Amino acid sequence: MTEYPVSGDLARLSRAKAFGGWQETWVHSARSTDTAMKFGIYLPPQADDKPCPVLYWLSGLTCTEENFIVKAGAQRYAAEHGLILVTPDTSPRGAHLPGEDESWDFGTGAGFYLNATQEPWSRHYNMYDYVLDELPTLIQSEFLTSDKAAIAGHSMGGHGALVLALRNPERYTSVSAFAPIAAPTKCPWGQKAFGNYLGEDPSSWEKYDSHLLIQKAQIHVPMRIDQGSADNFLKEQLKPELLLEAAQSVDYKLEYQTREGYDHSYFFISSFIGEHLAWHADYLKG
Amino acid sequence: MTEYPVSGDLARLSRAKAFGGWQETWVHSARSTDTAMKFGIYLPPQADDKPCPVLYWLSGLTCTEENFIVKAGAQRYAAEHGLILVTPDTSPRGAHLPGEDESWDFGTGAGFYLNATQEPWSRHYNMYDYVLDELPTLIQSEFLTSDKAAIAGHSMGGHGALVLALRNPERYTSVSAFAPIAAPTKCPWGQKAFGNYLGEDPSSWEKYDSHLLIQKAQIHVPMRIDQGSADNFLKEQLKPELLLEAAQSVDYKLEYQTREGYDHSYFFISSFIGEHLAWHADYLKG
Repeated sequence: MTEYPVSGDLARLSRAKAFGGWQETWVHSARSTDTAMKFGIYLPPQADDKPCPVLYWLSGLTCTEENFIVKAGAQRYAAEHGLILVTPDTSPRGAHLPGEDESWDFGTGAGFYLNATQEPWSRHYNMYDYVLDELPTLIQSEFLTSDKAAIAGHSMGGHGALVLALRNPERYTSVSAFAPIAAPTKCPWGQKAFGNYLGEDPSSWEKYDSHLLIQKAQIHVPMRIDQGSADNFLKEQLKPELLLEAAQSVDYKLEYQTREGYDHSYFFISSFIGEHLAWHADYLKG
Repeated sequence: MTEYPVSGDLARLSRAKAFGGWQETWVHSARSTDTAMKFGIYLPPQADDKPCPVLYWLSGLTCTEENFIVKAGAQRYAAEHGLILVTPDTSPRGAHLPGEDESWDFGTGAGFYLNATQEPWSRHYNMYDYVLDELPTLIQSEFLTSDKAAIAGHSMGGHGALVLALRNPERYTSVSAFAPIAAPTKCPWGQKAFGNYLGEDPSSWEKYDSHLLIQKAQIHVPMRIDQGSADNFLKEQLKPELLLEAAQSVDYKLEYQTREGYDHSYFFISSFIGEHLAWHADYLKG
């Protein structure tokens, strides 16, 4: 694994022109995770002249900041609508904790967008704080952005986006998810991660479970979810039906679409990311 | 490296819905290369009902059949225009020849779309025959296609596309290239590959060099080339100016565009692949 210095300044790692704008990757020393963190940023052509709103994209298990950048085809739509896309990594890397790299669904590449409370994870695995506060503060100070932000994600990242928006509705104009882990306290991925990061008391898990959080939502952020019908993880891990039932019970009107024949891959994301960005753009520029 | 049986039937390795159609990968036993060969095929929604034309895409150095599939974002446009996209690998794999895997610009991942004449390469490295004849014959027999085909590619694959179209103008309605190796007999990549695959007699190299072939073209296939101005390989390896001069000398009217600030990456390809597919579609469906 490539390692970057934990201390030191923000540094740009790459830059390529795309759809008239710039796709860049950066690394910086992050307080929340006490590691170096990489992120991608797409600056649309409009960002040359004026502050643009930001869409944060949270990726799924095993991903880095790169997957969405190269596979989603989102830059085209971001350029069309004048949106900045920010894509953080999915966990700290290089923390050298025992067990960190042993499984693909826990530790490295699987930060679950929470703040860990258990040793040894709690020092580094604080992706909730990182995505909610530290990264946006950095983006706003270093890039020309408007004060509007939205959030979206896939799978584990869909879970992260929903949780962040439900708990911080004043921070996001809109939230969308592709195939989110919609009830992590009720599925093996979530139970494994939450048990290790948060401990065995399930009451500490509730604030990271969107199907529980939605029942207490005071402000209803516009929410959109797309789910492929041929997704191998649908029944055991994702469980959108629990989120839909919970939403219905409190009259939270979310837009939910089943996409016939689509699986869990980036082919599904790329097919509908244009619709998601157009949808967010209406709120971000409204 | 994963190996597949050299003998045996065509087998589908993967299938995912994308933009209403299907992105698939297949493996088959190829005569031309005496190895198993993988290829990708995107079947647009229109292919359910009627024969669609085929665009062959040839990738660059180090690529497999997968890079274009996941990075170019081309499925969207193929679905829009009703084009089948076929993406072969860039070389035989698993031939176990000495030196095959030692460099990134020769051997595995670097077949250069030629028929090798030198030992030990000549038994396997016959990508010219594979792309021109064997693969299209297979595609036409196994999938519902129209009788129209076009060809395009990037870098080494741009070289391949131009050479195949210039030598076989009756086979392709149109040819396009992103940042092609336009004069391989005059650059280090081409000289290394041609010297090893074809031997040291430069007269045997001429039939694989588009800046030489274009001067003898009897039929002028519609040709389009896009080149990024920030491409690191432009001056030493690609040399489009030699192709442009040669074309001008015989009044071959090709469409050439310099794209300001774009580099050699898939961000460049993804930014303009939509224009290329629309351009080919006019010829393929005309």
